[in-house]
Amino acid sequence: MARTAFFISDGTGITAETLGRSLLAQFENSNIQMITKPYIDSREKAQNLAAVIEATAVRDGERPIIIDTIVDQTIREIITRAPGFKVDIFTTFLAPLEEELNTHSSYSVGRTHAIGQDDVYMQRIDSVQFALDNDDGARVHQYDKADIILVGVSRCGKTPTSLYLALQFGIRAANYPFTEDDLDEDGILKMPKALVPYRHKLFGLTIDPRRLAAIRTERRPNSRYCSIDQCLQEIHQAESLFKRFHIPYIDTTRFSIEEISTRMIAETGLQRRIRPR
Amino acid sequence: MARTAFFISDGTGITAETLGRSLLAQFENSNIQMITKPYIDSREKAQNLAAVIEATAVRDGERPIIIDTIVDQTIREIITRAPGFKVDIFTTFLAPLEEELNTHSSYSVGRTHAIGQDDVYMQRIDSVQFALDNDDGARVHQYDKADIILVGVSRCGKTPTSLYLALQFGIRAANYPFTEDDLDEDGILKMPKALVPYRHKLFGLTIDPRRLAAIRTERRPNSRYCSIDQCLQEIHQAESLFKRFHIPYIDTTRFSIEEISTRMIAETGLQRRIRPR
Repeated sequence: MARTAFFISDGTGITAETLGRSLLAQFENSNIQMITKPYIDSREKAQNLAAVIEATAVRDGERPIIIDTIVDQTIREIITRAPGFKVDIFTTFLAPLEEELNTHSSYSVGRTHAIGQDDVYMQRIDSVQFALDNDDGARVHQYDKADIILVGVSRCGKTPTSLYLALQFGIRAANYPFTEDDLDEDGILKMPKALVPYRHKLFGLTIDPRRLAAIRTERRPNSRYCSIDQCLQEIHQAESLFKRFHIPYIDTTRFSIEEISTRMIAETGLQRRIRPR
Repeated sequence: MARTAFFISDGTGITAETLGRSLLAQFENSNIQMITKPYIDSREKAQNLAAVIEATAVRDGERPIIIDTIVDQTIREIITRAPGFKVDIFTTFLAPLEEELNTHSSYSVGRTHAIGQDDVYMQRIDSVQFALDNDDGARVHQYDKADIILVGVSRCGKTPTSLYLALQFGIRAANYPFTEDDLDEDGILKMPKALVPYRHKLFGLTIDPRRLAAIRTERRPNSRYCSIDQCLQEIHQAESLFKRFHIPYIDTTRFSIEEISTRMIAETGLQRRIRPR
């Protein structure tokens, strides 16, 4: 039996959706279709959505689950009249918080986004630019300005992670890929010269060799680069280096980019320059 | 009077922090310091954190606010014994949801992250790679594969937005910057030839000219590129083009990257390839 959940907001919908997914993930055996409806900020949009909710209830034969962070009471009421099981985040938690803080809440649209937006924007732009400029070992002379330098073999997840760190936390992440140029005369991966002065900033990424081969195959099929032997060899070398130099590292096969990034911050004590919303 | 709020989780902490910031943003006049503590996944870590909370209560002269999504009950209890005003997300909402869904919740660690992680990872990698390959008009022959093409003047926010769309939603966003090459013989910005077949995929970004001048100054100080006259002129041309060709557009001065991206999705009806966690 399928059911539907609506995450509704007059803003981005990020809070309602994050909480909603987190709650509903606890019901793994229930077949729940999740729909996010951001920017429901007029009576007309609310009325249209209420009609959709009503049609969904009829189709499913069950009332939808409704998780909302709508601030405007007139709009909220229109949604409330639609058939649904309502999880009311703001009302549930704001009243006790008002009492605890001994003050009234402003309860105003999009309040989260109004604080220091300019600074946040500039920090993000700077950090994204830094990640792009210092992607893939392109430059090594800005490593003194890096908050962290991600190291690992080609295609192990360095670029997406460095961009996520930049966008979400304003952290300046450079990344350096190990290549054949970094092997010594015995074919052993050595610490690349450019990284020596910044050993304290290094964080390693590794990945399951089979997964790596699959990713590389999409990029360059039928090459030595994507062969399982080559991938096994490179990963073995990289992990040995991490252990030899006590570089902390994470296996990206097992974790999402959110987890990789937040684990790095937790392990290194890195300071975020901005806060996620 | 300063108070402290702790967002605590045995996972990434993203849910606790997102909800916490959203709730506390409603108390704009309260001076609340917010601290996120992810990966509190052992008794030892919990005991250390409980000690920190206790010390904070003494220092502030007020008990801290504690918003948590800890799943393990043993760990949770250690935190619960610390002095604090607790906002208990899971217990508050899961019980009524269990009743509504007529089933038990799994309430297991990091459940959200286990579903289809492989697909999500590949979609993200692909979309980030697409955004990078098609950044700044570098290539124009892949526009048939783009979900959306962001257009606007240099430094108006196209690159961070396209990367956010890729990382957060798996959307393939290319971007094309208007340059002097796109002016016709009368000095009027014309529709660039490479974009003509993809008019339906275009989305414009604009920005306050003063803000643009400030951003460009950081990149190339004392240039014509960063002068206010040049910025005014370019923005005027870009906005005229958007209006002339009925291209939807957003002013990045007023919105965060989250808002820009979610508004684009809402306005265009773009399908996300992945869901944010």
